[in-house]
Amino acid sequence: MKILVINCGSSSLKFQLIDSASEDVLAKGLCERIGIDGSQIVYTPFGGKSVSHDKITTVTPMKDHTVAVQLVIDALTDPGHGVIESLKEIDAVGHRVVHGGEEFSTSVIIDESVKEAIRKCSDLAPLHNPANLIGIDACERLMPGVPQVAVFDTAFHQTMPEKAYLYGLPYEYYEKYRVRRYGFHGTSHSFVSARCAELMGRDISELKIIVAHLGNGASLSAVMNGKCVDTSMGLTPLEGVIMGTRSGDIDPAIMQYIAAKENLSMDEVMDVLNKKSGVLGLSGGFSSDFRDLEAGYNKGEANCIRAIETYCLRVAKYIGAYAAAMNGVDAICFTAGVGENGPMIRAKICEYLGFMGVKLDDIVNAVRGDEAEISAVDSKVKVFNLPTNEELAIARETVNLC
Amino acid sequence: MKILVINCGSSSLKFQLIDSASEDVLAKGLCERIGIDGSQIVYTPFGGKSVSHDKITTVTPMKDHTVAVQLVIDALTDPGHGVIESLKEIDAVGHRVVHGGEEFSTSVIIDESVKEAIRKCSDLAPLHNPANLIGIDACERLMPGVPQVAVFDTAFHQTMPEKAYLYGLPYEYYEKYRVRRYGFHGTSHSFVSARCAELMGRDISELKIIVAHLGNGASLSAVMNGKCVDTSMGLTPLEGVIMGTRSGDIDPAIMQYIAAKENLSMDEVMDVLNKKSGVLGLSGGFSSDFRDLEAGYNKGEANCIRAIETYCLRVAKYIGAYAAAMNGVDAICFTAGVGENGPMIRAKICEYLGFMGVKLDDIVNAVRGDEAEISAVDSKVKVFNLPTNEELAIARETVNLC
Repeated sequence: MKILVINCGSSSLKFQLIDSASEDVLAKGLCERIGIDGSQIVYTPFGGKSVSHDKITTVTPMKDHTVAVQLVIDALTDPGHGVIESLKEIDAVGHRVVHGGEEFSTSVIIDESVKEAIRKCSDLAPLHNPANLIGIDACERLMPGVPQVAVFDTAFHQTMPEKAYLYGLPYEYYEKYRVRRYGFHGTSHSFVSARCAELMGRDISELKIIVAHLGNGASLSAVMNGKCVDTSMGLTPLEGVIMGTRSGDIDPAIMQYIAAKENLSMDEVMDVLNKKSGVLGLSGGFSSDFRDLEAGYNKGEANCIRAIETYCLRVAKYIGAYAAAMNGVDAICFTAGVGENGPMIRAKICEYLGFMGVKLDDIVNAVRGDEAEISAVDSKVKVFNLPTNEELAIARETVNLC
Repeated sequence: MKILVINCGSSSLKFQLIDSASEDVLAKGLCERIGIDGSQIVYTPFGGKSVSHDKITTVTPMKDHTVAVQLVIDALTDPGHGVIESLKEIDAVGHRVVHGGEEFSTSVIIDESVKEAIRKCSDLAPLHNPANLIGIDACERLMPGVPQVAVFDTAFHQTMPEKAYLYGLPYEYYEKYRVRRYGFHGTSHSFVSARCAELMGRDISELKIIVAHLGNGASLSAVMNGKCVDTSMGLTPLEGVIMGTRSGDIDPAIMQYIAAKENLSMDEVMDVLNKKSGVLGLSGGFSSDFRDLEAGYNKGEANCIRAIETYCLRVAKYIGAYAAAMNGVDAICFTAGVGENGPMIRAKICEYLGFMGVKLDDIVNAVRGDEAEISAVDSKVKVFNLPTNEELAIARETVNLC
């Protein structure tokens, strides 16, 4: 089967066409600045008629997501660089949907009631869910009859017990407004923990795994016997570890304090916490990109040292916390941009964890971007570098349902 | 020496008169509703001329803290139930001061510049520091020439490294406004960790200790080689574990969400987080008192089970996190009301910690309120029940400086 995987943002659309039999990516790309001046589609073919695997960038107006999806279809079926003959070869579409609330604990085939439920969850992800719905509508319009599947960022975390998902807040807020921890990056946490068990040659139902998904957004999860029992993001993706530009955990009283000191509205404070904080803020505006920070660290820049040290301690503390939540840990997996490509970050985090039997192999840990067991042979806890692949995970979920 | 220990709130004043040689409490008491109708002083003598150790409650007007301090002196020197002949026997006064900011990393003898510095920190503790200053002024007025010492709740935590005290926020907020983690209950964390080392017969400079100060307010600290390296309360005492009525950690985005849903101002949301949250909120308003919650738990009340399970997981996760922050732990100490008197709470928390070598002795763990080593003999990590004594700690600090 050929599965089109769609990840829609408010003004962007990422896509991959995946052959589910071989799990090869046939083509991938990105539509940017949808509905804004200067929109463009970047497309890279890996198979079909195209002999080149070069990126093709086409600047072209896209007034809405329907136009963007049409351009994706045009690119995929283009006589020159297309990878399929016609639209009919697309067997199903898998959509990443950010917030499934408590409605969705698994992926589902999209129908009107599913769309209505996604709409209801928009309240919890006002920037993301409406964009996801627009992408679904556009695909339905242009590919009538092709099954559309919704794969939720929150679904994997729905197995968390009440004691992990509740906050220390008036319980009525949960009853009335479903204020609770949801967690995100679920597709990645699920994919990586499953792959970890595979690599260990063990049944996931007998393992305690901690996944550290460290990208520009970052979250950790505790996966016990194959089920998520805790995760660091909360009602929204702001909570948890320090991220590229997001603060992660702070004293809630800080918001009011900053608002008063800087004369900011609550919306403006939220904007600071989401976009100007994290390692970007900690480094005094130096960068949110860990490649820059690592370079600065190596040159002895105080800003970068501060950001990296604070970041690594916070991640290490979450790993300690999740080892407690599961009363043990068999494996720790680093994934996503910063995790997969950060030997120094991984080493600094694991330095805190010797007490629980974590020991890295410094030579293997030099790996960047590839799958590897990076713990020493005598490490009690296995440590893996495990590239995540959310698009492949979405494609697999889609195939399972179609 | 006889030391008067004073803990001033905005409308209350707690006091103890301590003989520093024997460390006996000669008398203690509480002035309530200062500046409000129905004020009263509750006084209990333990020594001196009084043969009875009964509580004496006197309802009497107290228009301000100076009147309250005068009433304390009157009670202590009363011909009937007093414990000293005259005011002259009070050698020094030790004041609990909540927020010492970055100014104070130790206790100090109070002079004008100290008072000015405490005043400057009021911004960080607007409810507490002004009350502490009123108490200092009242004592200075009524006991001229008697040394006054300030013992800060934050001082013990000033040894935290930057990576532990910084938030993932724009660094300029730290530079301009000193937005950082301060931590509180420092006198208790210091007292308990020192006592722990004593009980272990080890030098504190070679130990990794986690103190869980679990009272109506609650905080944990990681004490490595005698120095605090991390603690759970932050800029204010709102952050960290779930408390009696305080939320502890939440997704910061929740504040805006609740404000919108409930049509509350930010001040009102803060009020909910401080006074209506914690186990009180989680139990659906059942109680903030763990004795009630435990009774409810044992009767199978869902509200109480929910509150206790959520609370214990959160504390256990902090212990795991601090074991990571120190890369190990030699001892865990439970202290303060809930910790000292909660065999069930301690057991539930320690159930998560087997992986790091924690094993309780269920029989010894039945202890309430008394000092005891509650870990099993083969526990890799020692666990103690250690009543805190902040007043004694303040008296000792005061003696050291006088």
